[in-house]
Amino acid sequence: MTASSWNRNRLTEKLGINYPIIQGPFGGFPSQRLTAAVSNFGGLGSFGALNLVPEEIKDVIAEIRSLTSKPFAMNLWVSMEDEGARTSDESAFNRSLAPLAGHLADLGAPRPIYKTYSPIRFEDQARVLLDAKVPVFSFIFGIPPRDILEECRAKKIFTIGAATTPDEAAALRDAGVEAIAASGFEAGGHRGSFLRPADDSLMGTLSLVPQVVDIVHVPVIAAGGIGDARGVIAAMALGAEAVQLGTAFLTCDESGASRLHRKTLLEKKAGHTALTKGFTGRLARGIRNRLMEDLNAKGSEILPYPLQRGLIRNLSIAAEAAGRADLVPMWAGQSANLSNCTDVSAFLSSLVEEVSEIAGPVAEWSARRRRKHSKG
Amino acid sequence: MTASSWNRNRLTEKLGINYPIIQGPFGGFPSQRLTAAVSNFGGLGSFGALNLVPEEIKDVIAEIRSLTSKPFAMNLWVSMEDEGARTSDESAFNRSLAPLAGHLADLGAPRPIYKTYSPIRFEDQARVLLDAKVPVFSFIFGIPPRDILEECRAKKIFTIGAATTPDEAAALRDAGVEAIAASGFEAGGHRGSFLRPADDSLMGTLSLVPQVVDIVHVPVIAAGGIGDARGVIAAMALGAEAVQLGTAFLTCDESGASRLHRKTLLEKKAGHTALTKGFTGRLARGIRNRLMEDLNAKGSEILPYPLQRGLIRNLSIAAEAAGRADLVPMWAGQSANLSNCTDVSAFLSSLVEEVSEIAGPVAEWSARRRRKHSKG
Repeated sequence: MTASSWNRNRLTEKLGINYPIIQGPFGGFPSQRLTAAVSNFGGLGSFGALNLVPEEIKDVIAEIRSLTSKPFAMNLWVSMEDEGARTSDESAFNRSLAPLAGHLADLGAPRPIYKTYSPIRFEDQARVLLDAKVPVFSFIFGIPPRDILEECRAKKIFTIGAATTPDEAAALRDAGVEAIAASGFEAGGHRGSFLRPADDSLMGTLSLVPQVVDIVHVPVIAAGGIGDARGVIAAMALGAEAVQLGTAFLTCDESGASRLHRKTLLEKKAGHTALTKGFTGRLARGIRNRLMEDLNAKGSEILPYPLQRGLIRNLSIAAEAAGRADLVPMWAGQSANLSNCTDVSAFLSSLVEEVSEIAGPVAEWSARRRRKHSKG
Repeated sequence: MTASSWNRNRLTEKLGINYPIIQGPFGGFPSQRLTAAVSNFGGLGSFGALNLVPEEIKDVIAEIRSLTSKPFAMNLWVSMEDEGARTSDESAFNRSLAPLAGHLADLGAPRPIYKTYSPIRFEDQARVLLDAKVPVFSFIFGIPPRDILEECRAKKIFTIGAATTPDEAAALRDAGVEAIAASGFEAGGHRGSFLRPADDSLMGTLSLVPQVVDIVHVPVIAAGGIGDARGVIAAMALGAEAVQLGTAFLTCDESGASRLHRKTLLEKKAGHTALTKGFTGRLARGIRNRLMEDLNAKGSEILPYPLQRGLIRNLSIAAEAAGRADLVPMWAGQSANLSNCTDVSAFLSSLVEEVSEIAGPVAEWSARRRRKHSKG
């Protein structure tokens, strides 16, 4: 490997991409344009399809394919609901509505009406991905059933699983998943933990990545807190063969995030991030705003996932319309302040340029170290 | 800067050390031998003196000086007690004793007796450091009063403050502190937060370090989750000019950790770490064992710092004697599994050798990047 080839390794070869840079999927507000823009640049764009029904996913895949001929990833959540979601009733809905009622009234929004929960099945979503033979199938919150993984292998659909702990990485390895995204707790959005509870699975990227690298033989993708060239080089030093950036892409024009969300992040006035179950029912990182504080307050009852997500959407639609950043879930990772991306191609060009200054020797050192230790 | 001089920068020059590697101070079980061993190797040994009265600190400094002629750091906690420590009474003591009572009985240990709290004052401890003109005065949990920092400058005592957030780094910078340890939440032991509550100041090292580097002009020391050469190189890529390792030194022969503690860490059977206020009253990271679970359980009342620390010591002395690793506070960071140090000099020699393979270009890139961005 020479200094000029830091960007080519076994992972980029298998994926057929030019740079080991992956765009994190955004479950809440994915964007076909963003996915295609990252892939067209030579990275791997991802699309978080978790909220979509099978027919919608089919359309999304067709649209992405109309925007790029390059590989891209479709991302799903293996676990689609929390215990209790199917039995949660109207009185639970009303209790969880309580901390939001004042805000809704302030905004002049109607009181949300309780609706029966209609589940979306992971298996039905996955079927669309398999039938469409998407280039990459990435997932969080668990491991797909064996038959789905076998069909992926048969159809040459590359699989990427997400681990928040070394134990989860070992489980993904044992299931034959082809690459592992080691997701540090700095990351914005959901903690995809599936062995221990998410709040007992919080590891920093700097600590998680090398421990995962030490126990798996497949390529490791570092995710969480990577906002600029420094984070990319650090991830490579830790043994990662690719990086995944999420929040860094949120602010770009191609992103599916709301104008208010993008503006808040770009103005760097949003303060710091924190974890909450309040936005959706599952532990996730966003900006610590008024809404998060109210939901994290003692006595606030949180509905099981995905019911809480549906409940909060009533407020966030009204709050976004009113420009109230304090009352919208503002997804962001801990390094939100490090990047200022408004155009995917410009951002990635500049990132690649800066990374290229030093990445060659670091990638070489890291690869040599991995070889040495896997022999020993 | 050439490839061979990665280990020399403005921080090592000022400190008069050969390698930008700092041993984290251990408040609970410091060791003069360990401090001296790290300094004798050419790093910076540290000694956590927070639990000692001034006369003891004087003796410790004399002993370290008898073991090394090299620079070393004495570490104190600026904030020495939590609100309520002076008014906490015997009934609070008894309530906090409740979750321990069964364990104490099992171990055949006597029921601890309530004692009136006798505070140690930070200012009295700091006086000893100033009078002894220690080479380095490092501190966590706040910023020393202005007159103490001025006396340090006058006496050429180098100061290192600890930040858990960018805001804390800015506050240390504004106070004229000469280097800042950016302490990610991966670190073992206490979270030294002093602006927001510790549990609302949890940032990963990968995210914290570059954000601190961006806002201060003094050297930044990366701390938290660094266990081997990979973490050292990653820290340098993030912009740090030195690293601080704590847990990595816990297992060495020179360490002040108990035999049970060292054995538990070396055997890698300890499971994962978590944060708790239960061990001392302040948020800190250790192995998630039975004791931590009991103390983190709902309904467990935790005394204000340092009263809880005193209470727990009753149990840990008996549990250590009985070899019960599940009932002793087992301080450890998230990368406890990465290192296997039993001899300081051998561990550091091997670390330096591995780091040297790649650190030159990385340090150079990082320094160039800092210069460019500080101009722009």
